[in-house]
Amino acid sequence: MTNPIRLLVHGANGRMGQSLQRLCRDEDTGCIVVAAVSRKVGARVVDGIPQFAASELSGVPAFDVAVDFSLPEGFDALLGLCVARGAGFVSGTTGLSAAQEAALADAATRIPLTWASNFSLGVAVLHDLVERAARALPGWDCDIVESHHTRKLDAPSGTALTLGDAAGQGGATPHYASIRAGDIVGEHLVQFTTAGERIELIHRATNRDIFARGALHVAARLKGRSAGRYRVADLL
Amino acid sequence: MTNPIRLLVHGANGRMGQSLQRLCRDEDTGCIVVAAVSRKVGARVVDGIPQFAASELSGVPAFDVAVDFSLPEGFDALLGLCVARGAGFVSGTTGLSAAQEAALADAATRIPLTWASNFSLGVAVLHDLVERAARALPGWDCDIVESHHTRKLDAPSGTALTLGDAAGQGGATPHYASIRAGDIVGEHLVQFTTAGERIELIHRATNRDIFARGALHVAARLKGRSAGRYRVADLL
Amino acid sequence: MTNPIRLLVHGANGRMGQSLQRLCRDEDTGCIVVAAVSRKVGARVVDGIPQFAASELSGVPAFDVAVDFSLPEGFDALLGLCVARGAGFVSGTTGLSAAQEAALADAATRIPLTWASNFSLGVAVLHDLVERAARALPGWDCDIVESHHTRKLDAPSGTALTLGDAAGQGGATPHYASIRAGDIVGEHLVQFTTAGERIELIHRATNRDIFARGALHVAARLKGRSAGRYRVADLL
Amino acid sequence: MTNPIRLLVHGANGRMGQSLQRLCRDEDTGCIVVAAVSRKVGARVVDGIPQFAASELSGVPAFDVAVDFSLPEGFDALLGLCVARGAGFVSGTTGLSAAQEAALADAATRIPLTWASNFSLGVAVLHDLVERAARALPGWDCDIVESHHTRKLDAPSGTALTLGDAAGQGGATPHYASIRAGDIVGEHLVQFTTAGERIELIHRATNRDIFARGALHVAARLKGRSAGRYRVADLL
Repeated sequence: MTNPIRLLVHGANGRMGQSLQRLCRDEDTGCIVVAAVSRKVGARVVDGIPQFAASELSGVPAFDVAVDFSLPEGFDALLGLCVARGAGFVSGTTGLSAAQEAALADAATRIPLTWASNFSLGVAVLHDLVERAARALPGWDCDIVESHHTRKLDAPSGTALTLGDAAGQGGATPHYASIRAGDIVGEHLVQFTTAGERIELIHRATNRDIFARGALHVAARLKGRSAGRYRVADLL
Repeated sequence: MTNPIRLLVHGANGRMGQSLQRLCRDEDTGCIVVAAVSRKVGARVVDGIPQFAASELSGVPAFDVAVDFSLPEGFDALLGLCVARGAGFVSGTTGLSAAQEAALADAATRIPLTWASNFSLGVAVLHDLVERAARALPGWDCDIVESHHTRKLDAPSGTALTLGDAAGQGGATPHYASIRAGDIVGEHLVQFTTAGERIELIHRATNRDIFARGALHVAARLKGRSAGRYRVADLL
Repeated sequence: MTNPIRLLVHGANGRMGQSLQRLCRDEDTGCIVVAAVSRKVGARVVDGIPQFAASELSGVPAFDVAVDFSLPEGFDALLGLCVARGAGFVSGTTGLSAAQEAALADAATRIPLTWASNFSLGVAVLHDLVERAARALPGWDCDIVESHHTRKLDAPSGTALTLGDAAGQGGATPHYASIRAGDIVGEHLVQFTTAGERIELIHRATNRDIFARGALHVAARLKGRSAGRYRVADLL
Repeated sequence: MTNPIRLLVHGANGRMGQSLQRLCRDEDTGCIVVAAVSRKVGARVVDGIPQFAASELSGVPAFDVAVDFSLPEGFDALLGLCVARGAGFVSGTTGLSAAQEAALADAATRIPLTWASNFSLGVAVLHDLVERAARALPGWDCDIVESHHTRKLDAPSGTALTLGDAAGQGGATPHYASIRAGDIVGEHLVQFTTAGERIELIHRATNRDIFARGALHVAARLKGRSAGRYRVADLL
């Protein structure tokens, strides 16, 4: 292996943060975690990884890319740090304010970064396929059906809306339907229909790890890029 | 063949009325049309079938079963005729008033009859399967997704609601989603989901003739039955 | 809770054996494991459960039902013990010889037992629905498509063959297709097709625990039954 | 409308030939049929269209594009005529010999032409999506399942094989499964699977007219192109 990508994991105690650290430890991802940042810190080192409280952010060691699945509260400080350090920035944090969106756009003139609602490789590919299909099938009806576990409160899902944007880029205007049932990890159907024929493009996630694995892929491919905002699909 | 079933087709100029007559002529259904009733009549005989205006209903020749896909306006007179003649009654007419529903229930004490929102054999079987699945899977989430062509205005479809009733008979409370796209003849998915597994029960109609063919099956099996209201599933 | 069902777990070190013990410990299954039997034994007690080698089978304490997911080698001794003790017997062990099948039939005259290729509740329900659909749809084409992870060597799956038997009980003769891809836990589609319409009955397993959980359900409902061979579907 | 495309329909009495003529008459396709060629000819003009026997091919009037859904026997003469006249050539004739394939390649240096196993727009788009997905998902398992009516004898379908070629262009090696049931017009599923996620790309044809309509689209867009062999996808 060439030099590993040095990661700062922000939101280290969350479900995604935990998955990211577990995968870096257990799988051959090409990444190592050099700093785990969470709101509060107990032990200074856990499983060999230095722990930092959010208030200690300025003291983290050198890193290549920050990976952030947390809350909007800590977003500004982390983004500022990445710009100051010239590091890459990968975020799946939702609920950003308009000012934070603007800060993201501004930061993209200085560092390479990615914000996405879904980091699975499959959804990124689907995003690309949907845009192409929409462009090639003008006038066909477009529908998006997404299914998730019953604890998911928002509908349509952020991923469904992003797929709808892709369809829109291709010229289609989708209708949405949402299903909340059992413990479905996440399924998205984008369907194009006309008289006599139909195309269905489906992504089924059966294991949450794919999201963490995808974020690590993105982080690895973001390192060394020129400044700009990259879509997950651009980095495949 | 034994004696054919003699049919009165009510709503003879509608899409279903036309299909019923065509199938009786072209396929081996065991049925013959002895009277075609529509709002207005031009020629007295078309393709060998005597034509009657709704106002001439009392003058139709002897028939075994009336098959009715029309509008609520003519419903009462036709149902009265069937009771008076002791004939069977098969109806897919929608939009009935409460009084007409009551008349249907009353007539069922005198003649054999079937009213249904969908006459395909497949949907009738699905109806039965849904009720059994719901009964065997208490506590599982239940969802119904129906897809139809863009000219269909009501949603959820009558068939979806009937399938929801079947699920309800089995103890489940379904959620509904509707898709209107292209020229989809009719698709119904009833899904039961719990942690770790899922059952999907799907019916896809690809040709409208199955509805007319199903109504003819029902008519043939209604003849000679004792008075009562029969479900399509009962007559399979 | 009333008295818990006392289980002997045979094949305690296998994947199913491990899941069974974990679920009895962590979930409210109504079952407790009183003896774990495996080929070789290290510690005499693990997580509070007494461990027995296969050679020590006669010394296990009183139990209500034995649950067996192991190899044909140990099958005869365990079945003999259950008959001798008047205990129930639940087995998913595959590759039984004709003599072992005969022993199973003979034991069913003395104790309540279940052998099945699949213990998920969903597949048991599907089994019942497939038989009913086949019976209600004579002359329709029947196809079974099963999908599993790439490490599964046999095809069609045992579950697909059992579903095919159910279709056969209903009068249909299915064709089979098999897909081996990724880490698919298990999906089975049974499809009935005729001119103009089609019914698809699908089961998707997304978590292996459902198989262990199903076996525990079966064990719990087998206790106290009269002698006989019960299908999973009978015990729902 | 600008000048209509003048078509020669070869195999005019076949199912596709009949559909092509009906659509040119009933829909706004931008095409008119100026010559219908079949093995034998009865009336010299049918529905206003001049009829020619295959033996009279040299006598047909001026045309822009020949559309050929027939048998390999007449292929050479028709292709030669198109080259001689400088006309476009659209063919879905299957079972060509190696010599005929070579003739096709040679003709493509002189005239614009398209040969395809499937002329639906949807399948052409799917072809493109499959290649892109395969390229973006190296190492994922690839499976193709195709379903057709029971009268279809070859398996996998020509369309499935073409989709497999597209997957192969993208680096994937698909496995095939075929279903023959009822009157299914044609369904193709191309599936990419890896640990934890899966993409399914599906095309469903519900009306045969889409194939004729697609061939007319291709013919209309072939007119005036420079010499070359065009894929259906290139002409969308």
